[in-house]
Amino acid sequence: MLRSMLVLCLPVVAFAADVSGRWNLHLVRFGEIASSARVELKADGTKVTGTLNELKLDGTFEGDHLRLTATRPDGSNWGAFDGRLQGDDIAGTVKQGNDEFNWKARRDSATAGAPKTHTFEPKVFYRNFSGAIPPALRINPGDSIKTYTVDAGGVDSKGVRRAMGGNPETGPFYVEGAMPGDTLTVKFTRVRLNRDTARSGSRIVPGAVQPDYYRNAKFEDNFDSSWKLDLVNQTASLAKPGERLKNFRIPLQPMIGCVGVAPPSNQSFRTGWLGSWGGNLDYSGVREGVTVYLPVFQEGALLFVGDGHALSGDGELTGDALETSMDVEFTVDLVRGRSTQAPRFESDEYLMASGIANSLQEALQMATTQLANWLQRDYKLSASESNIILGAAMQYEIAEVVDPQMHIVAKIRKSLLAGLQ
Amino acid sequence: MLRSMLVLCLPVVAFAADVSGRWNLHLVRFGEIASSARVELKADGTKVTGTLNELKLDGTFEGDHLRLTATRPDGSNWGAFDGRLQGDDIAGTVKQGNDEFNWKARRDSATAGAPKTHTFEPKVFYRNFSGAIPPALRINPGDSIKTYTVDAGGVDSKGVRRAMGGNPETGPFYVEGAMPGDTLTVKFTRVRLNRDTARSGSRIVPGAVQPDYYRNAKFEDNFDSSWKLDLVNQTASLAKPGERLKNFRIPLQPMIGCVGVAPPSNQSFRTGWLGSWGGNLDYSGVREGVTVYLPVFQEGALLFVGDGHALSGDGELTGDALETSMDVEFTVDLVRGRSTQAPRFESDEYLMASGIANSLQEALQMATTQLANWLQRDYKLSASESNIILGAAMQYEIAEVVDPQMHIVAKIRKSLLAGLQ
Amino acid sequence: MLRSMLVLCLPVVAFAADVSGRWNLHLVRFGEIASSARVELKADGTKVTGTLNELKLDGTFEGDHLRLTATRPDGSNWGAFDGRLQGDDIAGTVKQGNDEFNWKARRDSATAGAPKTHTFEPKVFYRNFSGAIPPALRINPGDSIKTYTVDAGGVDSKGVRRAMGGNPETGPFYVEGAMPGDTLTVKFTRVRLNRDTARSGSRIVPGAVQPDYYRNAKFEDNFDSSWKLDLVNQTASLAKPGERLKNFRIPLQPMIGCVGVAPPSNQSFRTGWLGSWGGNLDYSGVREGVTVYLPVFQEGALLFVGDGHALSGDGELTGDALETSMDVEFTVDLVRGRSTQAPRFESDEYLMASGIANSLQEALQMATTQLANWLQRDYKLSASESNIILGAAMQYEIAEVVDPQMHIVAKIRKSLLAGLQ
Amino acid sequence: MLRSMLVLCLPVVAFAADVSGRWNLHLVRFGEIASSARVELKADGTKVTGTLNELKLDGTFEGDHLRLTATRPDGSNWGAFDGRLQGDDIAGTVKQGNDEFNWKARRDSATAGAPKTHTFEPKVFYRNFSGAIPPALRINPGDSIKTYTVDAGGVDSKGVRRAMGGNPETGPFYVEGAMPGDTLTVKFTRVRLNRDTARSGSRIVPGAVQPDYYRNAKFEDNFDSSWKLDLVNQTASLAKPGERLKNFRIPLQPMIGCVGVAPPSNQSFRTGWLGSWGGNLDYSGVREGVTVYLPVFQEGALLFVGDGHALSGDGELTGDALETSMDVEFTVDLVRGRSTQAPRFESDEYLMASGIANSLQEALQMATTQLANWLQRDYKLSASESNIILGAAMQYEIAEVVDPQMHIVAKIRKSLLAGLQ
Repeated sequence: MLRSMLVLCLPVVAFAADVSGRWNLHLVRFGEIASSARVELKADGTKVTGTLNELKLDGTFEGDHLRLTATRPDGSNWGAFDGRLQGDDIAGTVKQGNDEFNWKARRDSATAGAPKTHTFEPKVFYRNFSGAIPPALRINPGDSIKTYTVDAGGVDSKGVRRAMGGNPETGPFYVEGAMPGDTLTVKFTRVRLNRDTARSGSRIVPGAVQPDYYRNAKFEDNFDSSWKLDLVNQTASLAKPGERLKNFRIPLQPMIGCVGVAPPSNQSFRTGWLGSWGGNLDYSGVREGVTVYLPVFQEGALLFVGDGHALSGDGELTGDALETSMDVEFTVDLVRGRSTQAPRFESDEYLMASGIANSLQEALQMATTQLANWLQRDYKLSASESNIILGAAMQYEIAEVVDPQMHIVAKIRKSLLAGLQ
Repeated sequence: MLRSMLVLCLPVVAFAADVSGRWNLHLVRFGEIASSARVELKADGTKVTGTLNELKLDGTFEGDHLRLTATRPDGSNWGAFDGRLQGDDIAGTVKQGNDEFNWKARRDSATAGAPKTHTFEPKVFYRNFSGAIPPALRINPGDSIKTYTVDAGGVDSKGVRRAMGGNPETGPFYVEGAMPGDTLTVKFTRVRLNRDTARSGSRIVPGAVQPDYYRNAKFEDNFDSSWKLDLVNQTASLAKPGERLKNFRIPLQPMIGCVGVAPPSNQSFRTGWLGSWGGNLDYSGVREGVTVYLPVFQEGALLFVGDGHALSGDGELTGDALETSMDVEFTVDLVRGRSTQAPRFESDEYLMASGIANSLQEALQMATTQLANWLQRDYKLSASESNIILGAAMQYEIAEVVDPQMHIVAKIRKSLLAGLQ
Repeated sequence: MLRSMLVLCLPVVAFAADVSGRWNLHLVRFGEIASSARVELKADGTKVTGTLNELKLDGTFEGDHLRLTATRPDGSNWGAFDGRLQGDDIAGTVKQGNDEFNWKARRDSATAGAPKTHTFEPKVFYRNFSGAIPPALRINPGDSIKTYTVDAGGVDSKGVRRAMGGNPETGPFYVEGAMPGDTLTVKFTRVRLNRDTARSGSRIVPGAVQPDYYRNAKFEDNFDSSWKLDLVNQTASLAKPGERLKNFRIPLQPMIGCVGVAPPSNQSFRTGWLGSWGGNLDYSGVREGVTVYLPVFQEGALLFVGDGHALSGDGELTGDALETSMDVEFTVDLVRGRSTQAPRFESDEYLMASGIANSLQEALQMATTQLANWLQRDYKLSASESNIILGAAMQYEIAEVVDPQMHIVAKIRKSLLAGLQ
Repeated sequence: MLRSMLVLCLPVVAFAADVSGRWNLHLVRFGEIASSARVELKADGTKVTGTLNELKLDGTFEGDHLRLTATRPDGSNWGAFDGRLQGDDIAGTVKQGNDEFNWKARRDSATAGAPKTHTFEPKVFYRNFSGAIPPALRINPGDSIKTYTVDAGGVDSKGVRRAMGGNPETGPFYVEGAMPGDTLTVKFTRVRLNRDTARSGSRIVPGAVQPDYYRNAKFEDNFDSSWKLDLVNQTASLAKPGERLKNFRIPLQPMIGCVGVAPPSNQSFRTGWLGSWGGNLDYSGVREGVTVYLPVFQEGALLFVGDGHALSGDGELTGDALETSMDVEFTVDLVRGRSTQAPRFESDEYLMASGIANSLQEALQMATTQLANWLQRDYKLSASESNIILGAAMQYEIAEVVDPQMHIVAKIRKSLLAGLQ
């Protein structure tokens, strides 16, 4: 409140030259954002020129009053903007033929300069992926964050309950300058266990076995499904195994179950959900060293991270992997003006594309399509070329079968693509 | 024909003592086999005792006339068999309360002795998995077969068309003594390429991509999808690549696409189909060194083999892997009286269980259930123990998404199970 | 802000007697509602007794200070409430063993008295089903609302655009006293067309036809899919048909596509979505005379209504039915303490139960289960009895196949159930 | 054997003129029928002309020796036939470039003349849909058959067990002149109950309810699910109801569950299966007065009929409808040279198209596509016109959800189509 009042008190004319630069603009109809775009303006005296996507802008800026005419590439008139500058914000009306609506723009807040590393101590953990949650921290593209996540039940590295269960998230982090249509990149540089206990389920969910299995299986009601994590030898074993499993050891493979941004269209989803915006991906490929690509749906992106697993089998069959708290570090960056259909991942070895959908079949279709498009766009392959390569070399992983959406990952070895011209 | 005529001419009484031994028995109602079982008989003079599954048999054998009363474990009467022996066959009637029907039995034809290796030169290739096809060769459990397969289009190692397309099969091989309820084991000791060409598809099938993909993709109508196989360096490359793919190489991984037995219930399926009886599994895990386990549904099992691939991506996305002819050797054996629900596989590294069903979800459910049952049965784990292990360590492979049924494989590393008590 | 300050200034003691009555209580952990319940309190001097679901409450109320001990039916101690009354609100802490958290309660706001009919003129239309939207009107159970809906594109009866497209909703209506665990009943007493035009799609969505259909179909790019509604004869015809369809007439059957409440867990879904909370049901059975039953997930329920159709084929195949604006009247009531798993409907002729899920198979499973449970609960049938009746007499309708979830309705004729004892 | 020996002894030259007429021809490769077609030949002295689909045939017939050259519509050479006539059969070789294979043809066996009604007394009932089963009766197109079906368990109208259970079929009936590519029409003129008992299941199959339902439902182990059929009042009631259901009555609606032809490609399916060839359709719309259209896949079609139901709810939820024996009459005819993709039905009121597939979604896609194609072909509608009509007026029925394939029917009222030009 204080900051904006100060701004109001300053003589506005002093900022006249400031209309030059990069703006994030939104068209507003019936009180809602109808579409968003990046705008570049350049003032020369009172004359202003610029671009809005493929539109050419021309007009004047006098006092706080901006007037712009937008022209299509074919020379035809698109419409006219009229607005008032106030600090780093402009607001006004658009006229397009007989149609009139509102617009607002804010100066791109990303600042140049050396990337910073933020050490972030979370106070509240959120159980919805939602753009309505106020940012916990604002960072610049290129910055890194050093923080931690509580386990799926809300318990931290010291065994303290910090939130109710259901994948409480660390964040959200507002990325300056991020706009719908961009891609957010999150490179996990550190994904490390910070305690020696985990907990899993001990019954494969009914949806992952045949109907008869549950009618016949004799589950032990008090089966203890807590795990001991041996951080030295990097193995997990049951904390209280019976005779038969007392030597059962399985190698650790720390991963992050949830990484997501604010979903589109003012939607808010429980942190068990996943979608094009990421979320509860539960993909064991999200490990230290891996980069996650997410489409941005809202100004600032709003990045959430949580739900660490000491290790997980495919599909998170018991509803819980080896759930534990985690120390994480990641570097966030922005690919401006380029979107992906859904999350993608890249490691030293693989390109990986997510298919997230209501059924395994649709998830597989989406993963395949995304990877085919990736090869066609980034390796300049024809449809036939990308298809014959994927037919011979694509592999699938079934990441998630126990949550509201299914998640299949299609991947291809980067070494196979190395020889492409 | 000749053999059975000879048998008929021999004085039947001479075989009286022969009623002792192992018989494969079938109950016959309204002209159809209603159920099948193994029977052990022991003659002592005219007195005969024996077992039929859990039933106890008692009676007499005089001349060619066998009379047996069957008693349940609880001492109650199950019914009575009356039959006549003729060579290695017995036929007659069963009375069970007021119900009367037929039975027939044939002496178990498996012979003891050292296993043999048969070199088999196929003359006809079959395009249906069916128990109505006459056996091409009869072998004993333990025997090996050395033969070859033509490619999915019917072309052999010399480029000669030997059959119409659609996975023409080598076989079928009749396994002496195999009965419904047994498991057939087929260990592939040699799966080798025998020519340097293959052919694949160049369009991912519509079912494996999103609807929009096909509407937008610009496929090249004359794209040449023939491959050159470099048997020295064990790589495949396109025979006539464009500029961009001229250095594209992919390692060979020879596999057998089809391995199956006669389906149950007099059914006959095209060789593109798959089911509990195996068939067009298209699983790249069926390689040299791997053992395939198949349930037996018909006396003699009738084993078919075909559809070699130089390599394949997951799911056989373009409808064809790198289709080629193949030299194969495999050893066939029998696990008597123990059945699997669907195909299983074992390599040095993994236990693998098939889920074959109408949808990916049902295939996944079946694969998971089969592997859980496998651990519970063979490793004496409780349901909770098998489930917590699989939740932490099970991996899925999507073998087949382009044929009438879907095929998912659930697998677990044998090294993880090594420490189990 | 002003109102609550006033409240603070009033002498609190004056309200002491008011602790008696029905309260809506919420347990609060880490700032979120963890669970909700109805509480009945009765003060006798400073002594207070009451119930919270199956718990028995005993304690004192002195000044503004309420202290209650909660006891389980077996006599064991559940925990203790400590709180302060302020107007119609109580807030405080709960102690349960070593665990301590917060609680708050508000006096049940439903008032007795004759039901009212509210004429509601909508000003804003909402495109999300969300509990975060402020109520447009507060009503008592039993009240009726007389209002209108704009069409799916936001256009009203006069042809004026009032909102952006995507099923903008009228409401939300806050129902006094509604609590999670209740069922809201919405009886549509009037569903009438208020203009003579509608618009539909003219291409069946790709997901409802086979892949080949779209590759081959020659759609007309400029096909005019506007309809003329003949309100006298109650038929629809194409506004600009070609020669072949100029006599095509189809009877009107006005229905409401969207009826829903605020979704659970602070979630917010686009108005194209549907779920257990209702939403974009697109079921042609929601007509004048039909009662809709919806589970309540949030205090006040928050009822939304919209998306009228002049008529619709099953499944809303082209993505749009005959979309039009509508005059509606409905009576809202509450079944306290009784929940449904998902929407249900009742007409003079049928009991109908929704299955809303990710796939048609799961939707069918849910619809069947809901209807079986309905018969078992309300007609006191055993599982076998309900199952044999449904096997013989259940019918399915496919309501919706083009939105993020599938919707199948299972229904049974009430006449068949009339003879049940 | 005898008949063909006689034929061999007759002087072949006597039949020379007979090469004129309609022939059913098959191309044979590697011992299998590769494709089939109708041929019309006309002899004038030794000169022969004719057509094979769109090919023009020219050649000579001398003695028993037929020589034909086939020419494409564009005048190019397709290949040459060389063959020998023997009775009503011709066999020989085809040369097409360097390719050489075999052909055979048989004179179209359909005879002109007044349609006959055959009263057929079944002796054996078959439990597979298979073209390998010898015809039980040969009929001409236009003929009618008056026969009966046993119930799904093999029991006839007198309560006598006539076959093992699993939908034993009456037939198969060979239709003279039927060829692959034709459509068989089966009009049911009589579908009548012939006894007063039926039996159903009493548990909805696990696949049609949610997983939790089966875990919680308390089914009665000895629930008696036999029904009494009141043939006078045309209602069904439980034979031994409990107190609550003693007045439960439901109207009869006799239907035929199975109607199918021999499947393609030498396949054989259990009589629980369904497919493009019909089979266990379990659609309650197959009643007296309804015409079924089936694609023909094999010479003679081989029609099977069975599995009568006194009535059924949608989906045959308990695995069995009210299973009973039935008296049936039907008239069989042929639409030559015109195929459907899958079964279709026509009543006085509706056009109905089947979708039969692995999942409900695919079944729905197929049903929708078939009905859209039907409107486009028979009513000369454009894609957009057929789509907008179906979007507004198509209804779905879920016929079958408990068998190996799912069955959904898409239907539209014929009255709506009456006004089309």
